[in-house]
Amino acid sequence: MPLKVALLGFGTVGASVARILNERASADLTLTHVFNRNVSRKRVDWLPGVTWTEDPEQIFASEADIIMELVGGLDPAGAWVRRALSSGKSVVTANKKLIAAQGIELEALARQHGVHLLYGAAVAGGIPVIPGLLSGLAGDRVVRLEGILNGTSNFILSRMEGGAEYADELAEAQRRGYAEADPTEDVDGFDARAKLVILSRLALGVNLSTEAITCQSIRQVGAIDFAYAKDLGCTIRPIARADVRGGGVLALVGPMLVPLSSPLAWSRGTENMVLLTGHYGGDVVFSGHGAGGNPTAVAVVSDLAAISAGAARRTPDAASASVTGEFELRHYVRFVVKDKPGIVAEIAGAMAAQGINIDSLFQRSGFGKDHLPFVVTTEPCVNSRLKLALSKIAGAGWMAEPPLDLQILEPEPAAVQ
Amino acid sequence: MPLKVALLGFGTVGASVARILNERASADLTLTHVFNRNVSRKRVDWLPGVTWTEDPEQIFASEADIIMELVGGLDPAGAWVRRALSSGKSVVTANKKLIAAQGIELEALARQHGVHLLYGAAVAGGIPVIPGLLSGLAGDRVVRLEGILNGTSNFILSRMEGGAEYADELAEAQRRGYAEADPTEDVDGFDARAKLVILSRLALGVNLSTEAITCQSIRQVGAIDFAYAKDLGCTIRPIARADVRGGGVLALVGPMLVPLSSPLAWSRGTENMVLLTGHYGGDVVFSGHGAGGNPTAVAVVSDLAAISAGAARRTPDAASASVTGEFELRHYVRFVVKDKPGIVAEIAGAMAAQGINIDSLFQRSGFGKDHLPFVVTTEPCVNSRLKLALSKIAGAGWMAEPPLDLQILEPEPAAVQ
Repeated sequence: MPLKVALLGFGTVGASVARILNERASADLTLTHVFNRNVSRKRVDWLPGVTWTEDPEQIFASEADIIMELVGGLDPAGAWVRRALSSGKSVVTANKKLIAAQGIELEALARQHGVHLLYGAAVAGGIPVIPGLLSGLAGDRVVRLEGILNGTSNFILSRMEGGAEYADELAEAQRRGYAEADPTEDVDGFDARAKLVILSRLALGVNLSTEAITCQSIRQVGAIDFAYAKDLGCTIRPIARADVRGGGVLALVGPMLVPLSSPLAWSRGTENMVLLTGHYGGDVVFSGHGAGGNPTAVAVVSDLAAISAGAARRTPDAASASVTGEFELRHYVRFVVKDKPGIVAEIAGAMAAQGINIDSLFQRSGFGKDHLPFVVTTEPCVNSRLKLALSKIAGAGWMAEPPLDLQILEPEPAAVQ
Repeated sequence: MPLKVALLGFGTVGASVARILNERASADLTLTHVFNRNVSRKRVDWLPGVTWTEDPEQIFASEADIIMELVGGLDPAGAWVRRALSSGKSVVTANKKLIAAQGIELEALARQHGVHLLYGAAVAGGIPVIPGLLSGLAGDRVVRLEGILNGTSNFILSRMEGGAEYADELAEAQRRGYAEADPTEDVDGFDARAKLVILSRLALGVNLSTEAITCQSIRQVGAIDFAYAKDLGCTIRPIARADVRGGGVLALVGPMLVPLSSPLAWSRGTENMVLLTGHYGGDVVFSGHGAGGNPTAVAVVSDLAAISAGAARRTPDAASASVTGEFELRHYVRFVVKDKPGIVAEIAGAMAAQGINIDSLFQRSGFGKDHLPFVVTTEPCVNSRLKLALSKIAGAGWMAEPPLDLQILEPEPAAVQ
């Protein structure tokens, strides 16, 4: 008997899911109902036998075994997922925002009703990182994760490598439909942060509060920063990272310098990448198309197939953990100044007062004295001390622009031998 | 109640599995028995409560729910796995040779006895490619796979990029314990071929005959080939690939030119990488440590954990398929000649007679006329025609060495939009 599945939301992903189910060779899943507003405009003729409805109650009252929630957002999606789980139906969702915010509660509800709640599509849709780590790394203890979890930001930054400025590549991303008119969620890191919370729970076994994780925007990164990064053997990528250290978790989202030898530097365009470091097995890299209708739909159908194949119900074994952004890392600080004698002494003094050692100081030629970009790199130091040092000189008259402070990712640590 | 597990083979991987189980936080798995020859020399004091034995029958007669087969090879491992499955015990193995040769029969036996047969460690041990594709890509139809499946060959070739010759890097690999005294299995492609057969079954749903897949050795690749590859924007990697086309499967193992822009070119040292192309989701890349005690042990413990968590029993849904090596690809052919007029005309003539177009012809300076390496690249052509063309000129007096013929991998095709 095939499982009956019903679909909430016939957008790009929903339509792609319907098509994959329609073309699927094995007869394990039957799409029976589709909910969407304005059905008359959405209905397609290649889904015979499917009941179309504008009333979500008809979905909950149906005989569907599994409900796919592909409407997104917190409301009404959250209420609908609760309604479905409480009706004894399994739920498959791609809703990262909902899972990041209410995943623990929703998982408890699923467990209580003896049904599945799967969300493989919520993080890096097309990359099987969630199923891969749940089944393939269950034997390891993952202690660290670094990811490129937002395709839009990665598109913009990886293209800026070619010399373009942020605004141009944002416009290009918008022209291609990769970025929204208001790109805040993507470029300011909020989308990646929700995914980081979900991945931290599954990979590291820690429940983090979304709001406790600092996001740095990619808007301040300029073409000049790619030039300087290159001088350091690095490029710049939008990184979300979390690291279990002692009792706490270090977690941050923002543009960071990554060595050109790191897999993170290979990632281009809208590609996503997740690098997991296991205590025993060392680094594992997953990469692929993080978003888009088809890759996300594959993740949804894979979750349906897992339920149909009789997968065990799992609730991640995770504990609350406090979050800090206090990684001890080298930093790249790009200043833009109105040049005059004494600037370096003032910067060095402010850093020394916080116990921060300067590692290098360099400057490309060809810039005017009234708008001169130059870069200071530091030895490893915690973020807050550097922020404090920078705040001491924030009001200086020679500062033409606020400085841009980026972390420099180190090469991966080796696994236990 | 934790599941009881017994171990056949306390070598590097076996010891690492025991240690991970010992340090494991969740109490879902208990190691009860260890079999090895010469127990008195193998026994360790950090495994209290474990029964050590030199008699495999004691393992089959034990109360163990799962038996781990980590002795390797076909015999007696095959008989032992059959014995275990027939006793109603699940089996977890890292034995690629056994699974490639007898996997179908063993899976049938497991199904018949209602137990699991899992072998996540048999291919690219530390990379969760088998669980990742079984659970995470179940919603897609994978149509193509390309992998770097042998760490020893990849170590040798990726280090030859620096200018060294094959023999030096083989010696280095042997010194580090990556290569055996007789490196045949690794460098001639047989190890990768067994893994390709397993992956083709799981990813592409095709059962291939191991012997039907041609292996090309990496022994003939020289430092000069890396120099010429670089001129073509490529490097050389040991590739195993399979591609579903129409009713058949194209499959080959051997050194190939890969574009520097391909993820396959990023793979260095003993790292393994698998690139899967889905009909819907496009490319997904998995990479990590393919072998070694700890990464392989993680894969074994992950399989144990899956059984303990109540994973569904799965038998891959695969059909027999005929194999051909007739990819239609561009080729790189490196000749070494005693220079004289007319050589190019002779080569071009032999190729033209097979309908093969030459794409480029180039030669680095600085070589003597009696041992002159130069390269011909062809437009896409099938292997057999090029082999035929090369056989026609094989006996030519100007040929100082047999030509080296390598395929040039194309950039990945795009996914369905």
